[in-house]
Amino acid sequence: MAHTPLYEATDEDRSNWPQVVIVGGGFAGISAARRLSKERVVVTIVDRHNFHTFLPLLYQVATAGLEPADVAYPIRTIFGNAKNVRFRHGFVRRIDQVERLVILDDGARIAYDHVIVATGATASFFDIPGARRYALPLYSLADARALRNRLLLALEEADVAGERASVALNFVVVGGGPTGVETAGALSELIDIVIRRDGLRLDGDTARVRLVDLAPRLLTSFPESAASYAKRELERMGVDVEFGRSVVEVEERAIRFADGERLEAVAVIWAAGLTATGTLTDDLSTTSGPGGRAMVGADLAVVGCVNVWCAGDGAAIPDGAGQYCPQLAPVAIQSGRHCAAQISRVLAGEATQPFHYRDKGIMATIGRRAAVAKLPHLGVIRGTTGWLAWLGLHLWYLVGFRNRLRVMINWTWRYFDWPSGPRLIVADAETAE
Amino acid sequence: MAHTPLYEATDEDRSNWPQVVIVGGGFAGISAARRLSKERVVVTIVDRHNFHTFLPLLYQVATAGLEPADVAYPIRTIFGNAKNVRFRHGFVRRIDQVERLVILDDGARIAYDHVIVATGATASFFDIPGARRYALPLYSLADARALRNRLLLALEEADVAGERASVALNFVVVGGGPTGVETAGALSELIDIVIRRDGLRLDGDTARVRLVDLAPRLLTSFPESAASYAKRELERMGVDVEFGRSVVEVEERAIRFADGERLEAVAVIWAAGLTATGTLTDDLSTTSGPGGRAMVGADLAVVGCVNVWCAGDGAAIPDGAGQYCPQLAPVAIQSGRHCAAQISRVLAGEATQPFHYRDKGIMATIGRRAAVAKLPHLGVIRGTTGWLAWLGLHLWYLVGFRNRLRVMINWTWRYFDWPSGPRLIVADAETAE
Repeated sequence: MAHTPLYEATDEDRSNWPQVVIVGGGFAGISAARRLSKERVVVTIVDRHNFHTFLPLLYQVATAGLEPADVAYPIRTIFGNAKNVRFRHGFVRRIDQVERLVILDDGARIAYDHVIVATGATASFFDIPGARRYALPLYSLADARALRNRLLLALEEADVAGERASVALNFVVVGGGPTGVETAGALSELIDIVIRRDGLRLDGDTARVRLVDLAPRLLTSFPESAASYAKRELERMGVDVEFGRSVVEVEERAIRFADGERLEAVAVIWAAGLTATGTLTDDLSTTSGPGGRAMVGADLAVVGCVNVWCAGDGAAIPDGAGQYCPQLAPVAIQSGRHCAAQISRVLAGEATQPFHYRDKGIMATIGRRAAVAKLPHLGVIRGTTGWLAWLGLHLWYLVGFRNRLRVMINWTWRYFDWPSGPRLIVADAETAE
Repeated sequence: MAHTPLYEATDEDRSNWPQVVIVGGGFAGISAARRLSKERVVVTIVDRHNFHTFLPLLYQVATAGLEPADVAYPIRTIFGNAKNVRFRHGFVRRIDQVERLVILDDGARIAYDHVIVATGATASFFDIPGARRYALPLYSLADARALRNRLLLALEEADVAGERASVALNFVVVGGGPTGVETAGALSELIDIVIRRDGLRLDGDTARVRLVDLAPRLLTSFPESAASYAKRELERMGVDVEFGRSVVEVEERAIRFADGERLEAVAVIWAAGLTATGTLTDDLSTTSGPGGRAMVGADLAVVGCVNVWCAGDGAAIPDGAGQYCPQLAPVAIQSGRHCAAQISRVLAGEATQPFHYRDKGIMATIGRRAAVAKLPHLGVIRGTTGWLAWLGLHLWYLVGFRNRLRVMINWTWRYFDWPSGPRLIVADAETAE
């Protein structure tokens, strides 16, 4: 049967094409959809948000350096021109493998020939009492806004309290991985800005950022030299870095450690670890992998399922050396693309291929002109070079040109220490007067 | 006694200066503070938001053309360099005229020598049943965000409903003043964009914007020619304009009119009228003016009070011709500045002067290259010229250069119909999975 070219296909042609449902519009889901948009399949992306979030920059939204719209991009707009990609706003409740249906919260049932589960991961609170309730995670745009409102409100409250007496103002970041390091650094810069520029009546000694971790060092996925550089830089910026600290409880305005210390804290930011999002992966796997992730074969098919694939942070992807790939954006992008390619192969009657992660390196920024990167061929780079590399890469990967431009403006502003920046406390609920 | 120059004053000098408290950081409050920052007084601006909002562009935030940070500016940043201006985050409960104290919700008491009440106005629902609960006003950044989420969600829901059957999708704007006209125009453009660019499964005939008003014409403060031009332009964009329609009830997803019609509506946007904000003005005036505004003398001192001034939308400002000044940004700016000048005069032992509003004209934009303006010397201008005038003026008055730049980018994008725009549905509350 002769195929009409993809770009000439009509709605009627498309109605006969195989249906691929992608659950989740994160890095994995979007890259899978991009790849599949060039094939003779109909793709439906289901997400409970109508936008894709650039997670690596969320901490900047939380610390009032960027606006929500700078790191989020409407999914419909990404695929505006692709006639065979559809966005469906909704929340997937379960996957019916017998009937081959994706079943949504609102009762809708979407038939599939293949389904890619790309639901990602979220903060893991390790069942520490109070953590889920009082600690502030940083894994969605709503998290970032909530954290920003909390931080700015805490600073305003401190200014008010300054009318009476000087108060201690601790911001505790739990977790010394890239998210923890970046958040602690940016938070320290934010405090510096509001004191110097906004005339907040605080002094740098009362407002402390503390980064705590159970591990004996920062950035365990980086070489030791990068970790010690990050620690030095953070300390130079006034951040207290404390190792070997085990959190036993989080209270509304305090945190308790295993050594008995109870520290008053205006905000406890949770950057301690991830768990796979939701029950979808649980439903599919009879056994779940580390961090609640779905067990997948070398080709990224979910173990024990037919035509169900899993990519990104929600998948326990074998790295070929007996371990699992880390939960990173490049892994999500590559694995999403790989799932898409395997679906094409299966549909063409070909055998699937194993996934190989091409290491793109890892990086973390600490502050202005201070970043560390571990790159595949170049090794560890740091300082201004590392920071410029970080800057370029993140701008490059931001989805839209317009977002890049706006982010560039915001960063330029902060870099040159010009006034303003989106330091707004905007709550949904207004108290009526 | 010789005065040291203002810029050389020390904290000790300032502790002896008269205290001026400004309640509200809108146009009136900010312009008063700006004027007073050059005098030997200590100014405290109290606002429950830490930012100033550029209200004339709120409807663009609501229709996803601009981001919240584009139209809001942190108050602290505006006065970053003025040592005698302080921002206090809080909500004023009442003014104790006997003790000369401004009393805040959190119990704080701020002593004043002079106080300027600049608390503005908010939507008036005229006691129409259901209006306060279900209609969406547009008078704060939170309002704008709530409206945006509602509009975008309604469009997504319509896309979902399109899976089953075609549904009518009415967006009703109540009020044919500038806010109503601008919102209806921008909303019509938004719907056009999401259908054409985002591939939403709607057709332009099911999604209708309806602008209803009790009056027999639009823009009653403009000449008739401007009003009929606005009506033609709106209709050309597909907006239904209906006059003589009296709203008797607003339901969760419907609106009822006096003629008996009940219209299903996914959103009822309330641009019907203003009332002075809060009880502060009620406390002060024994008799309140039109729309709950405080009665003030020609010098803007609140009638019956001592050293209490009122400016902006919350004041019933005599226009010298037996009427009151309209509730417009230029009136707010000029009256705020006038209050500040009168305080300086009183402190210097001089007599106060009456306020004279210098008419700056009025304008409203309808859509791309369509606006109307009534200018003091030029009369009515409209079409592309009016639109360019509107554009330039609004950019000029935006508080910070950075905001101007970002707004310029957003507008350029929409003008040239490039993809993206901040069409994000971001709620504070996330449903946990």
